[in-house]
Amino acid sequence: MRKPSDPLFDVIAFDADDTLWHSEGLYRGVETRFKTLLAGYGVVSVDPTMHETEIRNLQYYGYGIKGFVMSLIESAIALTAGRITGHDVGKVLDWAKEMQQAPVDLFEHAQETVAALAAHYPLMLITKGDLLDQQAKLDRSGLGHHFRYIEIVSEKTQQTYAAILARRQIVPQRFLMVGNSLKSDILPVIALGGRAVHIPAHLLWEHEAAAPPDGDERTYEEVEHLGLLPPLIEKLTV
Amino acid sequence: MRKPSDPLFDVIAFDADDTLWHSEGLYRGVETRFKTLLAGYGVVSVDPTMHETEIRNLQYYGYGIKGFVMSLIESAIALTAGRITGHDVGKVLDWAKEMQQAPVDLFEHAQETVAALAAHYPLMLITKGDLLDQQAKLDRSGLGHHFRYIEIVSEKTQQTYAAILARRQIVPQRFLMVGNSLKSDILPVIALGGRAVHIPAHLLWEHEAAAPPDGDERTYEEVEHLGLLPPLIEKLTV
Repeated sequence: MRKPSDPLFDVIAFDADDTLWHSEGLYRGVETRFKTLLAGYGVVSVDPTMHETEIRNLQYYGYGIKGFVMSLIESAIALTAGRITGHDVGKVLDWAKEMQQAPVDLFEHAQETVAALAAHYPLMLITKGDLLDQQAKLDRSGLGHHFRYIEIVSEKTQQTYAAILARRQIVPQRFLMVGNSLKSDILPVIALGGRAVHIPAHLLWEHEAAAPPDGDERTYEEVEHLGLLPPLIEKLTV
Repeated sequence: MRKPSDPLFDVIAFDADDTLWHSEGLYRGVETRFKTLLAGYGVVSVDPTMHETEIRNLQYYGYGIKGFVMSLIESAIALTAGRITGHDVGKVLDWAKEMQQAPVDLFEHAQETVAALAAHYPLMLITKGDLLDQQAKLDRSGLGHHFRYIEIVSEKTQQTYAAILARRQIVPQRFLMVGNSLKSDILPVIALGGRAVHIPAHLLWEHEAAAPPDGDERTYEEVEHLGLLPPLIEKLTV
């Protein structure tokens, strides 16, 4: 990447899950095994209760593997009217440990794109979820040393971003956020006056879905994959 | 509190759980209910399996309510050889939500001591555990506005403290840590060259126990309760 003579940004920030590495697929895979398990109890309709329980429990558990698995167990008890066996609850708990140890599966181009941008910009990682999970994934990703700042937060609202920028004395206009979720990564940053690049992921948790703004109001960029990010950043103007 | 003319410390940091507010009692109370539940299955010896499971699972779950409750469920399955019912697993899950919403029970003197020190020193909160849990407790404690810096970490080792101090450009000699755990709050700070005040709590999780250093090597202060902290700090010297 050509060195920018007059860089537009003081910091470029990345979301992590489903932006730099695959995450949603891990959850979806466990949901599929969960449905197979419950089929053994004659339960055919799992999705509505499971999704409703996950969303309702965010207020108690926040984002991450532990809360997800606790919600699965709660759903299983409800859907089987308490018939689920201790043995099968144990299987669901085993999945939590398996997820916690799953290898970090980087997206194509993640490695070289992050390295190229780190050579010219201070990079920040802003991810929500469980502190321990996210630290462990960053360690295992091999990307950790490229990030000057790491922010692990419990929600990504406009207030969250405002607080991070204020603490680091970063002007929103000189801040660029890259992520896969319009709701968490793009819209709150735009609302603050920052810049954003949306990279849609193949899989998106429906809780993270948000409608894109109408044509005229669209003030963020979109690229298909991480490999297209450095050339896009080179041609951005004020 | 008299304004120090030449303050010894650039930052005074507090641990949170069982230093500013009661925490261990909440866990002990749930453990008692858990033993009563398992007594219904004819299980009489719960402690060894329960404690061993909690400690073994720290590597997967970290500190906090969710991991604690998942370990209880795992212990229950093991101790009942899978006989625990879905209904009873549901009870344990309900305890998690109850713990998550429990009122924050401040220690005596916490309010006025933190307020008095905040008038003269930048205060920092350094707590380990679940990001969401700890943020929620700080919000509900009413003490949040007294703390200039909040650090929620997954472990409190010498490396953790070194990283926090380096990031804030604080010299260890001008840093004072206050907490109830020798292992997590006192010894790692002393090892870095920092200062520390130990306030033993009535209840201490055995995982947090550490032997105090021998007489000659004792380089930290100890007070019986938070109300004695401001007068102690006034008479500390280099």
